[in-house]
Amino acid sequence: MRINEHYAKLPASYLFPEIGRRVRAYQAAHPDANVIRLGIGDVTEPLAPAIVEAMHAAVDEMGHRETFRGYGPEQGYDFLVEAIRANDYTSRGVEIAADEIFVSDGSKCDSGNIQEIFSSAAKIAVTDPVYPVYVDSNVMAGRTAAAGPDGRYPGFLYLTGTEDNNFQPDPPTAAVDVAYLCSPNNPTGTVATRAQLERWVAWARANDAVILFDAAYESYISDPSLPHSIYEIAGAKECAIELRSFSKRAGFTGVRCAFMVIPKGVTGTDPGGKRVALNALWSRRHTTKFNGASYIVQRGAAAAYSPAGLEQTRAQIAFYMENARLLREGLGAAGFTIFGGVHAPYLWIRTTGNLTSWAFFDRLLETAQVVGTPGAGFGPAGEGYFRISAFNSRANIDEAIGRIRKAFG
Amino acid sequence: MRINEHYAKLPASYLFPEIGRRVRAYQAAHPDANVIRLGIGDVTEPLAPAIVEAMHAAVDEMGHRETFRGYGPEQGYDFLVEAIRANDYTSRGVEIAADEIFVSDGSKCDSGNIQEIFSSAAKIAVTDPVYPVYVDSNVMAGRTAAAGPDGRYPGFLYLTGTEDNNFQPDPPTAAVDVAYLCSPNNPTGTVATRAQLERWVAWARANDAVILFDAAYESYISDPSLPHSIYEIAGAKECAIELRSFSKRAGFTGVRCAFMVIPKGVTGTDPGGKRVALNALWSRRHTTKFNGASYIVQRGAAAAYSPAGLEQTRAQIAFYMENARLLREGLGAAGFTIFGGVHAPYLWIRTTGNLTSWAFFDRLLETAQVVGTPGAGFGPAGEGYFRISAFNSRANIDEAIGRIRKAFG
Repeated sequence: MRINEHYAKLPASYLFPEIGRRVRAYQAAHPDANVIRLGIGDVTEPLAPAIVEAMHAAVDEMGHRETFRGYGPEQGYDFLVEAIRANDYTSRGVEIAADEIFVSDGSKCDSGNIQEIFSSAAKIAVTDPVYPVYVDSNVMAGRTAAAGPDGRYPGFLYLTGTEDNNFQPDPPTAAVDVAYLCSPNNPTGTVATRAQLERWVAWARANDAVILFDAAYESYISDPSLPHSIYEIAGAKECAIELRSFSKRAGFTGVRCAFMVIPKGVTGTDPGGKRVALNALWSRRHTTKFNGASYIVQRGAAAAYSPAGLEQTRAQIAFYMENARLLREGLGAAGFTIFGGVHAPYLWIRTTGNLTSWAFFDRLLETAQVVGTPGAGFGPAGEGYFRISAFNSRANIDEAIGRIRKAFG
Repeated sequence: MRINEHYAKLPASYLFPEIGRRVRAYQAAHPDANVIRLGIGDVTEPLAPAIVEAMHAAVDEMGHRETFRGYGPEQGYDFLVEAIRANDYTSRGVEIAADEIFVSDGSKCDSGNIQEIFSSAAKIAVTDPVYPVYVDSNVMAGRTAAAGPDGRYPGFLYLTGTEDNNFQPDPPTAAVDVAYLCSPNNPTGTVATRAQLERWVAWARANDAVILFDAAYESYISDPSLPHSIYEIAGAKECAIELRSFSKRAGFTGVRCAFMVIPKGVTGTDPGGKRVALNALWSRRHTTKFNGASYIVQRGAAAAYSPAGLEQTRAQIAFYMENARLLREGLGAAGFTIFGGVHAPYLWIRTTGNLTSWAFFDRLLETAQVVGTPGAGFGPAGEGYFRISAFNSRANIDEAIGRIRKAFG
């Protein structure tokens, strides 16, 4: 049996399993250590009461013949799709049709799977640093050669995030088919301005390219002048796919629900030059390889849009963002140079003492028993940086700040 | 943006959406018709009380900070993996390690995604008739040319199921990398004997091929001498991947949970001839593009293995299989030639009057208001056959039998 040889181009381990291994090894050697995890970016607040209530009701429905639901529509139930349309789009002046929304079990799946509808010859642009799934899923599909000594894969076009561009690089000048953008950004916590998104949309339209806009953290935007959706930019419905998730907006990392928007005006070309709607391609992919998100989960997601659900989930987000503010203030006072953390639950900090990202990871774990994420895990341009997440209890955030200030201050 | 050109090789619509469209059109024209759906193979009994109870408890856990769960292990929680090992394997004399089990959100996803770890040059064998996902997912990945006039894709090796081989074809003689097998079979409802599985395993080992064994319906096997797992055959742990699902065994079609077993002894070769464990490849795929099945869903799945859960789900299966027995008896008395329906909830019937499968679909809908699945939708060898599912209430099964006997008897 001949295997997919492109997997050998990947490093042996995905970033977060490697972090898990190092933390487990530290804990095995220091069983009494109280390790505070600000690494993987996982939420810590319980599900909102409105969501819990809706999921209990859905479980009960599933337990009675009259209300039992089997296979649902692969694209998602109307009650959820309509809540998404009204709350996330119509309310911001954007019209998205119901059949342009694809409910799924997570943005990690969506962002990993979407490349299946691109040509194997498609030229891909990614930022550096970058959410690893964008890169790895395209490497696995054979769109690159093996990584070079700098850790970059020949075949990608890299757009480097730097302190000078606030880790929000401008569009490329060379031709590409698809560009992955993430704003508010994971890992850097910085956000694209309206003017930057306008440049991206203008570039995509002028160059017949598609933007994959990952807005998994849009609910953390605090400045009302910033766009939450790329479709708030005129012309984006002809060139952009948007990814959204309930993971960080409603605490669904263990519940699993997300969605992707593919407007019918977004097209690509087949080898004969014919224009094909990406919505139709993805619909075929989605109905062939996916069977819908769990009914119980979709009821929970819809409840995040109820008046009570909105109020409760907004309070959770405000809580995490106050954590982020405290981290910014506390680590700033300790002398760290910090980016992000204002419109996103992530702080991107410059390591001190010229430490590499992984050396800083080990130092922080050993001296402060705090877990973060090495910037180099997000690409070579992340080397020398470190991601700290604001997802934790207030007590742990306060404790982590105190320990870091003691260790590094 | 250049698209994946292989999607154009597929027919415009996946089988089940096309059935849905025809049924909706019929209902729009006949708003008073009481249509009985024996088509898509969706369960109708509510979730077992033990499962409902476990999911309520899990929802409550998610609503409290002390017991909240965020990201889980991508391969599945230990409590579920251990229940699978003990109940599905150890109890049948098969030892499967915990890290050889991959919990997912559904067998449709697993059977569609597994081909990603094969070489793009891999030669694929499928049966005809066949569950369409095996075929379509490989067409999408570019392993075939466009379908020929007979509906078959050049590039696949087809193993034809016939009345003579009870729709359980023998292994091929030509070399292939991977063969997809499904037993108890969807769509034909027939089951592979131990001797047949022994021939398959011997063939795979002799030819360095891998068997994808889809056992989504194993819990419907009623003859205790028949294997439920391919690993009951000596040597299978060196050549077979097994797919299992909670959809039909525990009514999870709308809940979403399944798993795949990839023993570490199953290997393939890279272009340099090096042997690589498929378990490691799939682990990389699973952790990169998937974030685990919902915690609440996994708690429900684990409850299907509790003493109460086993008793309740076995009673559901017995209920469906009594439906199947009634259908066999009733349609047999009406003169239909019937296959399957003894170890699977599907009957595979020969159409009457030399009707094509789709003509029989329309005739059955119009004269009996019963929806089935055209055999031709599962491949050209399914032409002239029709799948009837036993998933429905007893009243609907009785009513459907009566109507079919009246229309065709």
